[in-house]
Amino acid sequence: MDTRINALNHFFSHKDSFLDQLISFVSIPSISTAPENKGDVLRAAEFLVSKMNSIGIKNVKLHPTPGHPIVYGEYLEAGDSQPTILVYGHYDVQPVDPTELWHNDPFSPTVIEDSLFARGSSDMKGQVFACLAAIETILNTDKFPVNLKFIFEGEEEIGSPNLKPFLETHKDLLRSDVALNVDTGMSGKNTPTITYGLRGLSYFEIRVYGPSKDLHSGIYGGVVHNPAQVLIDLISKMHDSEGRVTLPGFYDEVKELSAQERSEFARLNIADEHYQDQTGVPGLWGETGYTPTERIGARPTLEVNGFLSGFTGKGSKTVIPAKAMAKISTRLVPNQKPEKIYHQLVEFMRTHAPETVKWEVEEISTGSPSLSDINLPATRALVTALKEVWGVDPVYKREGGSVPVVADMQEILGIDSVLSGFGLPDDNVHSPNEKLDLPTWYKGIEALIHFFYNVKNA
Amino acid sequence: MDTRINALNHFFSHKDSFLDQLISFVSIPSISTAPENKGDVLRAAEFLVSKMNSIGIKNVKLHPTPGHPIVYGEYLEAGDSQPTILVYGHYDVQPVDPTELWHNDPFSPTVIEDSLFARGSSDMKGQVFACLAAIETILNTDKFPVNLKFIFEGEEEIGSPNLKPFLETHKDLLRSDVALNVDTGMSGKNTPTITYGLRGLSYFEIRVYGPSKDLHSGIYGGVVHNPAQVLIDLISKMHDSEGRVTLPGFYDEVKELSAQERSEFARLNIADEHYQDQTGVPGLWGETGYTPTERIGARPTLEVNGFLSGFTGKGSKTVIPAKAMAKISTRLVPNQKPEKIYHQLVEFMRTHAPETVKWEVEEISTGSPSLSDINLPATRALVTALKEVWGVDPVYKREGGSVPVVADMQEILGIDSVLSGFGLPDDNVHSPNEKLDLPTWYKGIEALIHFFYNVKNA
Repeated sequence: MDTRINALNHFFSHKDSFLDQLISFVSIPSISTAPENKGDVLRAAEFLVSKMNSIGIKNVKLHPTPGHPIVYGEYLEAGDSQPTILVYGHYDVQPVDPTELWHNDPFSPTVIEDSLFARGSSDMKGQVFACLAAIETILNTDKFPVNLKFIFEGEEEIGSPNLKPFLETHKDLLRSDVALNVDTGMSGKNTPTITYGLRGLSYFEIRVYGPSKDLHSGIYGGVVHNPAQVLIDLISKMHDSEGRVTLPGFYDEVKELSAQERSEFARLNIADEHYQDQTGVPGLWGETGYTPTERIGARPTLEVNGFLSGFTGKGSKTVIPAKAMAKISTRLVPNQKPEKIYHQLVEFMRTHAPETVKWEVEEISTGSPSLSDINLPATRALVTALKEVWGVDPVYKREGGSVPVVADMQEILGIDSVLSGFGLPDDNVHSPNEKLDLPTWYKGIEALIHFFYNVKNA
Repeated sequence: MDTRINALNHFFSHKDSFLDQLISFVSIPSISTAPENKGDVLRAAEFLVSKMNSIGIKNVKLHPTPGHPIVYGEYLEAGDSQPTILVYGHYDVQPVDPTELWHNDPFSPTVIEDSLFARGSSDMKGQVFACLAAIETILNTDKFPVNLKFIFEGEEEIGSPNLKPFLETHKDLLRSDVALNVDTGMSGKNTPTITYGLRGLSYFEIRVYGPSKDLHSGIYGGVVHNPAQVLIDLISKMHDSEGRVTLPGFYDEVKELSAQERSEFARLNIADEHYQDQTGVPGLWGETGYTPTERIGARPTLEVNGFLSGFTGKGSKTVIPAKAMAKISTRLVPNQKPEKIYHQLVEFMRTHAPETVKWEVEEISTGSPSLSDINLPATRALVTALKEVWGVDPVYKREGGSVPVVADMQEILGIDSVLSGFGLPDDNVHSPNEKLDLPTWYKGIEALIHFFYNVKNA
């Protein structure tokens, strides 16, 4: 028997201290997309550097990038016979608007009953800190059972523009056996989850330009093609009547679900009402011919993430707007190539945009979809750990979200990722009132302690 | 010969003083739609009260309304044998956004060469002040040739919600022979213009509600009907492929153009290039089967004045928005009834909106279309005056803009309006860098002096 019992006891008696430290971490408004928060993003990186140094991680270093820095560190004292686990995470967070819908300041963390409310508490500062808490606990009571490397980025929420180049140029430094990525969460409070499939992403901004300035809609209504109307007509054409995306070639490389996969999806057995309860919508919608779980986990989608044109204040202003802008993103599934979507979108615009306006498409970010091997030794080590803590077998799931680093690590470093995490579906990630369920978080740390012991000799 | 020569000479020697006073007037940010400018709107009204008192107008009074006040005044010393002219105008202005496109502060009036740049300089403080300057000039040198009443409102740019009730309850006070309304402008710098047809307006805000909060587009993309997409699809259906509006019954009461009217429109002979030069668009657009001038002057339209949903800042945020909002307005022609359009729009939404969202339609403002008699004595008096100053016959025009007070005065007070004005097509009304062409404005004041003499005994 290993000495994990000492570590677990140490953890149980230090829970409050870990929560206090997490609260400090989530107090930092590290919104990576906001130029005005650049200093805060750096502070969050420095928080990690300081924490990692304090618990005995070696060679901790901030690697600058053209954007926000990447934090590296390592602990290699378990020796060559033991596997090296590359712990991945991100310390940046989503924007917080609309702020008026938060019941506390998003960066003044507030504990209400079992929940910690703060931007980043679930996605994913809480998850990053769970890893560090488990590691600190073991290091305080024992020799660490395996080797560790760390890569914490500050640009995940803006599409990780500088991560791939970093992986390319640091292949040796990052050489590992497997990555641990706890950014994917659980299907429910009592349902520990291993994620083995993730969607990719291509995110665009489309801008349509009409008249050189806003015009009086009385004087010019009837001769000028309204750019808002043009962009509306274009976006409306991007789906057909069956909810399928009409970009040319969009489905060409989509890997159709096998009968076996469809029966696995059916086993997850999530009722429409579950999604309605989670979201508050009066009814579901989506591509004809697939179940909701299939549509999220295994089918690509196209969403309008934002649209702005003309006068949007209170009251009335009778203008024909000079321009219109939409943020459009696609979620991609194996084997779609994100870099092809841009060309499909541009071809769509060339075919359908009228000559009465000018337009441009900017690609803002891309990330590849991925499928992981569910029989990796490290995955089995985590499955055992999750079962130990929750008392049930975890479920295996393909998820709708995007963690493009998984595909990037497969391609560049040649390693697979073990994907799990301790966020819950109702954590309001990317939304107002993001929260972390603290009992689940504590269980997660416990499970990670088990994992690091289980993965020894794996 | 009347003594108008004295008045004209007096005017020529006081031009600079009138410009200085206009600059004070347009410095007041009387944006009627902005609650924060409520005090400024009142200041603009008080400016008029003070000016009217100083030049000898009697019974000048601010009539409070639930919104911004109406300024009344009268000068009735020409006696019962002379006609009474009801001078209409508005002292409120449009909002100024996008402010970054202005080359000067919109309320720090700036004269560059022949132009006065300021919000409201053309629409229509400059026009209101032209009337007062002409009247002041005559009163300084002569007994006034006709009787005058004044009604200046502060809510024209928000659809005059309190004007109709005021007309209803002050029919006796406002009893007049004809209204003078110089809010309609000129077709070109050397083309004085009488407007005899105006479009009406119905302005709406449509709101579509989907999930109870913004959602992560990875986690829910594929099951939730995106409210931005829903509103986009709905608005896209509001026009058919021939540019016709598809609201049910929209064209039922549209008075089709007679062959004679079409030949009059053809005489205006405005080339497509003219509209392209004015607006900077690469090509024109509109309802099939009508010329551009017909489409603006005699055909109804539907425009998207604004659209807002989701994340519209820099960078990316992968949300499914909780809601989407559009400002939609229709320009109406005789004999459409603005109050019917709301019901048509609601019926359209009931027919086409999916069950996956909730929605609501708010009617923000309405105004009736109108056609005026071009053979009124007062119109003939103005035609002569314009010809005197510009040396050419004015053109008669049906305009695309809306001045609903014209129809309201026809209906409630039983009087027609003489419609003209001294704004130019390139004045950027409702746009950044609104300006007034000063040589044209001075000519306009001169023409109004002639008009008041010409209309005597008419």
